[in-house]
Amino acid sequence: MTLTQMFDPTAVAIVGASTTEGKIGYEAMANAAEFDSPVYPVNPSSKGTLFGEAFVPSVTDIDDDVDLALCCVPGPVTPEVIEECGEAGVGAVVVYAGGFAEAGEDGERLQQSVVEVAEEYDISVLGPNTSGFVVPRTNLLCSFASGAEKLPAGNTAVVAQSGGVAHALAFQSRRQGRGVSVMVGLGNRANVGFTDVIEYFDGDEDTGAIVIHVEGTDDGRALLEACRESETPVIAYKVGQSDVGEFAESHTGALTGDHELYLAGFAQYGIPTVDATDDLLDAAAALADSPEPDGPNVGVVTAQAGPGIIITDRIQRAGGRLPELTAETRDRVDELLSGVTYTGNPVDTGRPMPAFGDVVTAVAEDDNVDIVLVYELFEQAMGFPADALDGLAERVDKPILFATDGIEEDMADDKATLTDAGVPMFETPERAGDAAAVLARYAKIQGRAGAALEASR
Amino acid sequence: MTLTQMFDPTAVAIVGASTTEGKIGYEAMANAAEFDSPVYPVNPSSKGTLFGEAFVPSVTDIDDDVDLALCCVPGPVTPEVIEECGEAGVGAVVVYAGGFAEAGEDGERLQQSVVEVAEEYDISVLGPNTSGFVVPRTNLLCSFASGAEKLPAGNTAVVAQSGGVAHALAFQSRRQGRGVSVMVGLGNRANVGFTDVIEYFDGDEDTGAIVIHVEGTDDGRALLEACRESETPVIAYKVGQSDVGEFAESHTGALTGDHELYLAGFAQYGIPTVDATDDLLDAAAALADSPEPDGPNVGVVTAQAGPGIIITDRIQRAGGRLPELTAETRDRVDELLSGVTYTGNPVDTGRPMPAFGDVVTAVAEDDNVDIVLVYELFEQAMGFPADALDGLAERVDKPILFATDGIEEDMADDKATLTDAGVPMFETPERAGDAAAVLARYAKIQGRAGAALEASR
Repeated sequence: MTLTQMFDPTAVAIVGASTTEGKIGYEAMANAAEFDSPVYPVNPSSKGTLFGEAFVPSVTDIDDDVDLALCCVPGPVTPEVIEECGEAGVGAVVVYAGGFAEAGEDGERLQQSVVEVAEEYDISVLGPNTSGFVVPRTNLLCSFASGAEKLPAGNTAVVAQSGGVAHALAFQSRRQGRGVSVMVGLGNRANVGFTDVIEYFDGDEDTGAIVIHVEGTDDGRALLEACRESETPVIAYKVGQSDVGEFAESHTGALTGDHELYLAGFAQYGIPTVDATDDLLDAAAALADSPEPDGPNVGVVTAQAGPGIIITDRIQRAGGRLPELTAETRDRVDELLSGVTYTGNPVDTGRPMPAFGDVVTAVAEDDNVDIVLVYELFEQAMGFPADALDGLAERVDKPILFATDGIEEDMADDKATLTDAGVPMFETPERAGDAAAVLARYAKIQGRAGAALEASR
Repeated sequence: MTLTQMFDPTAVAIVGASTTEGKIGYEAMANAAEFDSPVYPVNPSSKGTLFGEAFVPSVTDIDDDVDLALCCVPGPVTPEVIEECGEAGVGAVVVYAGGFAEAGEDGERLQQSVVEVAEEYDISVLGPNTSGFVVPRTNLLCSFASGAEKLPAGNTAVVAQSGGVAHALAFQSRRQGRGVSVMVGLGNRANVGFTDVIEYFDGDEDTGAIVIHVEGTDDGRALLEACRESETPVIAYKVGQSDVGEFAESHTGALTGDHELYLAGFAQYGIPTVDATDDLLDAAAALADSPEPDGPNVGVVTAQAGPGIIITDRIQRAGGRLPELTAETRDRVDELLSGVTYTGNPVDTGRPMPAFGDVVTAVAEDDNVDIVLVYELFEQAMGFPADALDGLAERVDKPILFATDGIEEDMADDKATLTDAGVPMFETPERAGDAAAVLARYAKIQGRAGAALEASR
């Protein structure tokens, strides 16, 4: 099964397209109409047009090659619609309706018949019980949620078990000035699961990191193996540390499983894990936008000591370390700062200052440092050290993360300059520290994997 | 010592006011000039005006009653300036300069002479080594940081050991559409410490919750007692779980102390603690804007199951609980939802729907429920259940929290309506769940304290 017909279709049919605002068949069509390629509303009982496209009675009546159908019909009609899609040569279907495996025995049987028809016609089924997916870069908005058309394109692939969480992640990503290469809600995973989607987006050149939100899955090992096989970094967020079993099962038809087992599995397979949606996106930004770190040693430069202490604490708690700087770096920094502040690691400049960029450069060039994290509250008169940071990460071949805070509109231009220069930006000292710690753990893991590979030769 | 002259001064002198942009004496004057009452730039070597105010050579030359002086001179000159302030009848001084107790023995001696002069003249000294404080409501901007004039007034008092963290918290609060009643960075705490500031803002009618950021203090017991004595809820964020000792000591002259001891102390004294700046502000919003919860039982209503699972997990992990709803509530909800979704707790409506507000009302009115948390991704066609939520918290006398996500500008009006109705708003399912959990822990603590009081009678 390839998912090209799903995520890069020639044309899309919206089966059950509706003229009634608020209905899924209307909202899905409203979003799908933004797609750059042809879109066909399908409904045997509708005439005329919807969003400028003429209704067709059945997907088999479309002359065009339709790769993807968005199935907006009630659950019980779904197998029939998928069969029609099969006859029309459609290779991928999104099923929004609920009432399948998450809803007891009858639902399970219904889902089973979806799977059987899909297998007969070799159709990839996303869902049932999902809010779909969005590929912002091609305006492929296969979700019924409002606002999908405003999600910006970015380099993080969001793959969530829950459609709601997928959307929440995509909206958060936008709010943080980032974006997604794709946002997928898997729902009940009739025959498209984590492994298929991870494999597909590992091969996507617009994806720099893949984040997965996991409630539970029947084949944990396959998931772990897909994560490990992926050349694109994968970061996992497993929910359900406490007992949320009954409610979770009613959601996407899966038990949340043994939380500790999952975490141990991810650790064993070298997949960094986080414990919140915002941390997931932060880690993805750090990994996708940076050179790979060679080790877990973080050099911290801060213009304010208090946030620097928080950052130091978070990095150390999460398995990163703050190495001593070399004598050469200490001399350089001492000279830049005239010895007024702490020139260990973190380097604390006390306030933003004209030499701040030079201090960051000195720390970034330190051989003891694998990852650099900079914190600087915005001061209007000083701005950010954009010149020093532009291209620095590439030159020293190390991740350089930047966290700040201030009045949003005052620092918008300066932030945009750093973002344009490819510097991953963070909002709070904790989130920046946690992101640096994920990089540190990732480096450790990759280091161990590399060493194991060497040893096995 | 009263801090009225600090936080509610008649007039303010800026000693060391400077015409050089970027210097603390310039930036502090730029901010202080916004104050509603008289402001005097003081500098013996400057003539003319600064921000429209005439320079005076010494604070003793001001005819007006000056309550507060912002001391923008270098460290070594500070005792002399404070003495002059004392002679002029100034009752409160902010000392921005560093180079005191955080900087070795010489600095300690310098700080000791500051304390001695301050005691002689009964002057409250905020700092040294602080970025000051801001009271947005009266435009009292006694910070040299840029953007202070744009901090909105709100009902959370931010009291941070670090000036940088104080500012970061205030900026975060603004970004989340909230605001502060005051933002204080304590710095070295020459003679104004946590206890003084907590006591003062406990008596401030514009403060609904006090948040404290603690690195370490010499008198932990006094801090704990001040927190417990406060009728206004206090939430604590203690940093330094890992060893950040040397760097921390170089910061505000205090060891971070034994982290576990602090946490145990806060627990014993009934002070909820959190582990990040954003959680601190979330907890404050939940506590300040809500009726006090009677117990730790949280009713969750969600329009999307995935975020609902995350929320359930976070609440349970942090000591809250999701009780069964009463049979009456289940019947009401069943009727509203026509049995299509899970009507346990959480109640999952599957999607936003016109009856959503009625479902929230039913759960809020349930006798088993002490706290309500609502999650709903924004759908343009549906909006938020503003009518149902307006006044509901007061009517049922329970906290009602609301978390959402979506395209910021699309939902701005709807969010503003809820905010205006006094509904605390949250950005991610985790942060909403954590805030509800703080409420649950607070209710447990208060319940225990109440029971102990009863028993002692």
